[in-house]
Amino acid sequence: MEFVALSLDFLAVVIGSLGGSLFAVDRKLDLIGAMALALLCGLGGGLLRDMIMQVGDVYILRTGYAIPASAVTAAVVFFLSSPFQKRPRLIEWIDIFSVALYVAAGSGKAIAYGLDPWAVILLGMLTGVGGGMLRDVFLGEVPRIFQKSNFYAVCAILGAIAYLASSSLGFVGFWPALICTIVTVASRRLSLRYDIKSPSQSDLHSFFGGRRDK
Amino acid sequence: MEFVALSLDFLAVVIGSLGGSLFAVDRKLDLIGAMALALLCGLGGGLLRDMIMQVGDVYILRTGYAIPASAVTAAVVFFLSSPFQKRPRLIEWIDIFSVALYVAAGSGKAIAYGLDPWAVILLGMLTGVGGGMLRDVFLGEVPRIFQKSNFYAVCAILGAIAYLASSSLGFVGFWPALICTIVTVASRRLSLRYDIKSPSQSDLHSFFGGRRDK
Amino acid sequence: MEFVALSLDFLAVVIGSLGGSLFAVDRKLDLIGAMALALLCGLGGGLLRDMIMQVGDVYILRTGYAIPASAVTAAVVFFLSSPFQKRPRLIEWIDIFSVALYVAAGSGKAIAYGLDPWAVILLGMLTGVGGGMLRDVFLGEVPRIFQKSNFYAVCAILGAIAYLASSSLGFVGFWPALICTIVTVASRRLSLRYDIKSPSQSDLHSFFGGRRDK
Repeated sequence: MEFVALSLDFLAVVIGSLGGSLFAVDRKLDLIGAMALALLCGLGGGLLRDMIMQVGDVYILRTGYAIPASAVTAAVVFFLSSPFQKRPRLIEWIDIFSVALYVAAGSGKAIAYGLDPWAVILLGMLTGVGGGMLRDVFLGEVPRIFQKSNFYAVCAILGAIAYLASSSLGFVGFWPALICTIVTVASRRLSLRYDIKSPSQSDLHSFFGGRRDK
Repeated sequence: MEFVALSLDFLAVVIGSLGGSLFAVDRKLDLIGAMALALLCGLGGGLLRDMIMQVGDVYILRTGYAIPASAVTAAVVFFLSSPFQKRPRLIEWIDIFSVALYVAAGSGKAIAYGLDPWAVILLGMLTGVGGGMLRDVFLGEVPRIFQKSNFYAVCAILGAIAYLASSSLGFVGFWPALICTIVTVASRRLSLRYDIKSPSQSDLHSFFGGRRDK
Repeated sequence: MEFVALSLDFLAVVIGSLGGSLFAVDRKLDLIGAMALALLCGLGGGLLRDMIMQVGDVYILRTGYAIPASAVTAAVVFFLSSPFQKRPRLIEWIDIFSVALYVAAGSGKAIAYGLDPWAVILLGMLTGVGGGMLRDVFLGEVPRIFQKSNFYAVCAILGAIAYLASSSLGFVGFWPALICTIVTVASRRLSLRYDIKSPSQSDLHSFFGGRRDK
C-alpha cells in the first residue's frame, strides 16, 4: 500500500518533469532551462501549495527523491528527446493522470491540515495545474489554463470537489484519491472527445444574441 | 465596530476581484481566467504579504469568505460585465478606496507582528498594489506600477508611511487605518487632477538639459 | 570577522540592487520600477529561498538594512546612472562576485537548517541567480539563465556543490564560503574567456550528426 502510494507519487513527479522538459526543448532552451521547466512543471504546483499553506512541511525539501528525479528526467529528455516527441498521445494520457494524482495529493494535504472546503478546492486545483501555469508565466505567456480550452483547470476543480465530497461522505484511505483521479481523468477525456470548451465572453455574447467579436 | 471592519474588508475583496475579472473579460480570457485574475487582484497582494511574512497566518485560508467572495464576483462579472463596463469612473473611485483599505490592512498586520519601519512600508505597499502587479506578471506584461504613471504605487507608499507615523504618534484603534486611507486616496486624486507623474529617466535628462529620447 | 561577513553581505545587496536598477533605467521604467527591480535583483533570490524554506527566518525582514540599502541604491542609480553605465566591465566583475557571495549565503543557510544535498544545491543556486530570474519574469521575458549562455546558472550550481563538498570534508567557519566563491567566480571567468556555452538541443543535433536548425 505504502509502496503503491510512493510509486504513484514518484510517477507523477517524473511525468510532470517530462512534460516540462519537452516544452523547454521545443522552445530551444538550454539544459538549465530544461531542468528549470522540469522542476516547475513537476514540482511547481506542490511548491506553490506549500508556500501558500505555510505549515513548514515543504514537499520538495522533505522528499529526498523529488528534486533529483525531476533533474535527471530533464537531463534524459534533453539528450534523448526524440523517443518522447514521437508519442504525443502517450504523453497526453500520462499528463492527464499526472494532473489527477497531483489534485488528489493537494486536496488530501489541505484536508489533513483542516482547511475549509474553498481552500481545499483552490489548493487541490493549484497542485494539479499550478506547475503548468508557472511554466507559462516563466515563459512570459498568458497561462493556457486562463484561456478558452478543453476544461483543463475545470477538471482539476471537479477532481478536488470529488475528493472533498467523498472524504466528507466517510470514504477513507486511498478511496478519496481514487475517486478524485477517476473524476479528473474522465471529465478531461469527455471534454476532449466531445470538444467541450470553457466559455469566453465572445461565446456568451453570441449565445445571448449580442454582437460576436471577429 | 467589528462589523464595520469586516464590511470594509469584504468590500475591498469584492472590488479588487471586480477589477481583476473585468480585466480578464477585456483580454477575452475564459471563466477560469476571470476567476484567476479576480483571485490575483482581490487577494494576491495580501497573499504575497503573507508568503513573505511567514507567520503562518494566511488571510485567504483563515478567512472563510475570501475565496468564495472573489470567485462569485468573477462569475457575476463574467456573465454580466456590461453594467460594470459602463461605469468606468465609479470603478476607478472604488479601486482607489480598495487599494487604500489594503494598504491599511497590510501596514497594520506588519506593525502587529513587530516588523521594522522599512518592512512595514514595503509590505503595506505590496498588500495594496501587489495584486495588480501579479496580474500584469501573469499576463506576461511589465507591471504598470513599474512604468511612468500617476503615482499609483507612490500613493500606496505614502499611505503606508501615514499609517506608520500615526501609529508611532500614539493613534490607536481604527485611526491609523483612517489616516492611511485618507492619505492614499487624497494623494491619488491630486496626482490625477494635476496630472503629476512619476519620473522616468528621459524626463530627468530633459530636466537636467540632457538629450531627450524620442 | 563578523564585520567582514556583514560588509560582504552589505556589498552583495548593493551590487545586486545596482544591476537591477541599471536594468530598469535601460528599459525606461520609472523610479518605482527602478526600486522594484533593485529589490528583485538584490534581495529576490534570498527571498525566494526563504519563501521555499519556510523556517520563519526571512532575511529581508530580519536584516534592518537590506530594504533601505536596496531602495537607496536604486534612487542613486536612477538619478545618476551615467557613471555606472560607463563602467560595464567593473559592473560585470562585481556582479560575478555578488552572485558568488549569494550562492555561499544560500548554501550555508540550507546546510545550517539540515536540508539534504539536493535541496542545498537548488537553494544555493536560487539564492545566487533567482533574483535575475525573477527580474526577467517580471519584465515578461524568458529568464536569461534558461537560455543558451555562458554558464551563469551552471557556475552557481558548481559553487553550491563546492560549498557542500568542502563543508562535508570538515571545513568550517568562512572556509566553505571562500571555496564556494572561488569556484563560482573562476568557473564563470573561464567560461567567458574560452566562450564555453551551455548546450541547447540544436547543438546536440549537429553534434550527433542530426539536422541543424537554422
